[in-house]
Amino acid sequence: MDTFQKCHTNYTPLTPLTFLPRAASVYRDRISVIYGHIHFTWGQTYERCLRLACSLRTLNIGKNDVVSVLAPNIPALYEMHFGVPMAGAVLNAINTRLDANNIATILKHSEAKVFFVDYQYAPVASEAMRLLCDSRGRKVSQSSIPLVIVIDDVDSPKGIRLGELEYENLLSNGNPNYVPFSDQILDEWDPITLNYTSGTTSAPKGVVYSHRGSYLSTKSLILQWEMKSEPVYLWSLPMFHCNGWTFTWGVAARGGTNVCIRNACAEEMCHAITEHKVTHMCGAPIIFSILLEGNSNSLILNHPVEVLIGGAPPPPSILEKIEKLGFHVTHAYGLTEATGPALICEWQTKWNLLPINEQSKLKARQGISVLSLAEIDVKDLETMVSVPRDGKSVGEIVIRGSSIMKGYLKDEEATRKAFKNGWFLTGDIGVIHPDGYFEIKDRSKDVIISGGENISSIEVEAVLYRHPNILEAAVVAMAHPFFGETPCAFITTRLKSVTKKEETKKEREIIEFCRKSLPHFMVPKKIVFLKELPKNATGKIQKFELRALAKTYSPPPPTSSSTPPVKSIDQQTTTRRRYVPNDHHQHPKLKQVLAISRL
Amino acid sequence: MDTFQKCHTNYTPLTPLTFLPRAASVYRDRISVIYGHIHFTWGQTYERCLRLACSLRTLNIGKNDVVSVLAPNIPALYEMHFGVPMAGAVLNAINTRLDANNIATILKHSEAKVFFVDYQYAPVASEAMRLLCDSRGRKVSQSSIPLVIVIDDVDSPKGIRLGELEYENLLSNGNPNYVPFSDQILDEWDPITLNYTSGTTSAPKGVVYSHRGSYLSTKSLILQWEMKSEPVYLWSLPMFHCNGWTFTWGVAARGGTNVCIRNACAEEMCHAITEHKVTHMCGAPIIFSILLEGNSNSLILNHPVEVLIGGAPPPPSILEKIEKLGFHVTHAYGLTEATGPALICEWQTKWNLLPINEQSKLKARQGISVLSLAEIDVKDLETMVSVPRDGKSVGEIVIRGSSIMKGYLKDEEATRKAFKNGWFLTGDIGVIHPDGYFEIKDRSKDVIISGGENISSIEVEAVLYRHPNILEAAVVAMAHPFFGETPCAFITTRLKSVTKKEETKKEREIIEFCRKSLPHFMVPKKIVFLKELPKNATGKIQKFELRALAKTYSPPPPTSSSTPPVKSIDQQTTTRRRYVPNDHHQHPKLKQVLAISRL
Repeated sequence: MDTFQKCHTNYTPLTPLTFLPRAASVYRDRISVIYGHIHFTWGQTYERCLRLACSLRTLNIGKNDVVSVLAPNIPALYEMHFGVPMAGAVLNAINTRLDANNIATILKHSEAKVFFVDYQYAPVASEAMRLLCDSRGRKVSQSSIPLVIVIDDVDSPKGIRLGELEYENLLSNGNPNYVPFSDQILDEWDPITLNYTSGTTSAPKGVVYSHRGSYLSTKSLILQWEMKSEPVYLWSLPMFHCNGWTFTWGVAARGGTNVCIRNACAEEMCHAITEHKVTHMCGAPIIFSILLEGNSNSLILNHPVEVLIGGAPPPPSILEKIEKLGFHVTHAYGLTEATGPALICEWQTKWNLLPINEQSKLKARQGISVLSLAEIDVKDLETMVSVPRDGKSVGEIVIRGSSIMKGYLKDEEATRKAFKNGWFLTGDIGVIHPDGYFEIKDRSKDVIISGGENISSIEVEAVLYRHPNILEAAVVAMAHPFFGETPCAFITTRLKSVTKKEETKKEREIIEFCRKSLPHFMVPKKIVFLKELPKNATGKIQKFELRALAKTYSPPPPTSSSTPPVKSIDQQTTTRRRYVPNDHHQHPKLKQVLAISRL
Repeated sequence: MDTFQKCHTNYTPLTPLTFLPRAASVYRDRISVIYGHIHFTWGQTYERCLRLACSLRTLNIGKNDVVSVLAPNIPALYEMHFGVPMAGAVLNAINTRLDANNIATILKHSEAKVFFVDYQYAPVASEAMRLLCDSRGRKVSQSSIPLVIVIDDVDSPKGIRLGELEYENLLSNGNPNYVPFSDQILDEWDPITLNYTSGTTSAPKGVVYSHRGSYLSTKSLILQWEMKSEPVYLWSLPMFHCNGWTFTWGVAARGGTNVCIRNACAEEMCHAITEHKVTHMCGAPIIFSILLEGNSNSLILNHPVEVLIGGAPPPPSILEKIEKLGFHVTHAYGLTEATGPALICEWQTKWNLLPINEQSKLKARQGISVLSLAEIDVKDLETMVSVPRDGKSVGEIVIRGSSIMKGYLKDEEATRKAFKNGWFLTGDIGVIHPDGYFEIKDRSKDVIISGGENISSIEVEAVLYRHPNILEAAVVAMAHPFFGETPCAFITTRLKSVTKKEETKKEREIIEFCRKSLPHFMVPKKIVFLKELPKNATGKIQKFELRALAKTYSPPPPTSSSTPPVKSIDQQTTTRRRYVPNDHHQHPKLKQVLAISRL
């Protein structure tokens, strides 16, 4: 029974690259890519990717070589998701919001052999190259500097050049009958892409995906999002986020049309949605704000649009507005390390009978595992014991399966810490509801421990966001002489200008507002008004800066005469265990959590 | 870049067994199985499967041991698809239409350790055991005779026993907290099931599936059939056909409800469809005949039912009727060796604009590959060169990918022959249409070669089926002194009784009818009226018997004075290549083709 040999007939490497020749065969004349006036068919896209792969081989790019790219969601970036690994190489799509220093660090760390640069990013890329040359010049030969290839665009001003090579020229020199190097891949464990986490306090980490993991994730996501055949997919989510949550490959698998846009602004998105009858799009909840606050008045949907939202659920009021317009929202949760979404909030028919606010609550949960995960759990990291499925007991969300990254590039220590007892530690604190659905309560580092009680900063922020005048809110721990820590809220408001006196009044009013929805111990003791919240290049709020700021607002230590505060009823009745963070959580910022990432 | 180690976190074996604990977790209280008055939830089904796996271990069943079962589509058979491999064992679901001799052959060949028998099949199983004991008694010890376990049913007459053990008793003794042996599977290449091809002329072949192949096929099929979450799946297709085309596992993955029925008769199917609001069902086209000729008048669908049809497409007239009732038909093609459907006729929106007869033609094609196949092609087996995508050039359909079987059990020679140059040879003759869709023209052995031209017996049969009086038709080659072969048709009619004289008239009329739709050379030269067509235990028409019969109708050799027939215009204009069958095709009957199989 166990004597069968694996062979080329019955054991072929799992790779999403197989979706492209298949699409070119059965969807050959169907539109694969739309970008402004450019329309490609799947037959053309396949040919262009073959040309790209061939040209890269000519440039001596081969197995495991890293090809970096800095570009918005244009056709070239889409094509690289196939063309680069078809040459045996590893695609590294860099976040376009990074600064020259970040980019130089990535190019150096990844030892990129080629660096594709969209004309729009030529200045920052140029600066990054200068930094790289300076840093490398001291130690290594110039040969390790990546070859720069500019990507021109229909509307790009001529004359900007970082080198002699240009993307379209490269393609035109490639052989469309090239036999992809990837056809000779014997191991599905080979790397396909390299995605750097956003990294706010130290160097970013390079997350490496395998062909196997990407194939499995892609299939799971198009299956569980129920993406039907012939989707029209709008690239509102940057492709540099986990390779567009694998939909770069998924749209090919379903014979869909990729609608590429240079900027995910209201104008471009609204135009694309109505003009091309978009059926699917992804993103952080901010896309709703963009759509609603943009020219959404002109947005009349004649067809439903499926939207997969990663991260923080949109507030019920926005959700209601957006669904009334014709958008159907599904909530997902993922991490770069899990090849994009790992949980998806699969809707249950019976929930349709619930009141709308109940539905919003259910929709806001992170949901259930994708089928490419073997297991998911919430565990006490000290004992590795699972928490009860009561919707209350918190622990760390842990996952395992073939869609988890191979590891962090050149960082065995970090990989070892993230992989514990056969589990990947997400660094996110969550609960399992009695119905088996998962809900995230906080990043482990963001938990505020007040008088022995865990306070989820996300829960507090959610309440603040409901306040009509609050635009943005971030809650961190503030030292407290009795409770150890208490919540301190930083907010920006819709109000034009607020005097110091008004602030005090407003602060009291907001605290009162919070008291109506939160146990007393969870109510922020301090509300700080800021003009804007500190953010990093990817738009992620920099809580460590706020923590530093919070120190200045901490109440003074008690004098001997002062009375220690009495435990509130809320505190007495709650039984939540004190969460003890694991070592691994000392650097949670190094992991890019979709839950918090912004477009 | 290539230094990453596979570990339990990021490299877990692919197996459909993971779908069950997941379903038990997130769909715990949802109905998993309905059978008469029996309702199980996913929580209960998981528990029952754990008990079964535990009990099998207690009976000393372990890794790679074969567990055979002879049962209709009852809950026990469904549970075995998880419980048996969860014990590390290999499930062998035997075709219930086989005779005692066939069954004994399978039990012997598979070396089954346990033999589950539904009470209804106790007599034939008893006879099979007798044959097995007789044959084994001479050579081997009694210890190699399988342990028989009867499956009682709510309505089973008491007293029928082949042994002391009964399925429900076995379950009640099992530990529901058992840790599945399969959790310790380290290799997804391990066997999960063993399915025997129908075999009409020699011993059947045992097709072995891996956990990996089954997982990949399952996901591809629920994805490409677009089976949404919460399906209500009617078991009209026997689970012993490629493990119910993998939907045994697929329904668990989608958190659906399995509606089990003992007999796929009109009454049970109609009742189930309306009572349980069935959303999905599979089968051979004969289920439509059953539904339409049964009490379909009482069949009022208030909801659409998706039907996946394997094999010969239903005639347009039936298709139209059935779709008007609310059934939405998708056509698929597969083989046991490909873990069920390997091609699916994915519908294209633009086809909705075509006239209904054009739509029927498109719907009748076999379609495009499932995503678990790495490649599919139509090749000249001599040169292994692909045929042009012109919809005309025929060759053998060949496939490769991880959903292809591991091989034939204890038959290296047959495995080697079926796997050629990295391809699995399906034994089916087909074309690739310009749009990339595949269409089967014939089984290689069923091709009639007339005057150097290939005639597809299926094409001729399709025309005959359109005749209002013809019930069944089968076309085989008949020797011909000039053309080598010509088509000879065997038919059954709706007419009560036909005299010899009437037959001659009818024959001429049918030949005239065929001439309207077929090139002359393809028109049957002889129509033979039979009361019924010879069929095997699975209902497959036995063409070898008809070929023998056809010899008696061959025209006599020409005398010297007779004029050789002139080539028709059809023959002169057609350019199809003479098809030379490969060695592998000497035994095409050994492979169970869904295309021809019946319920």
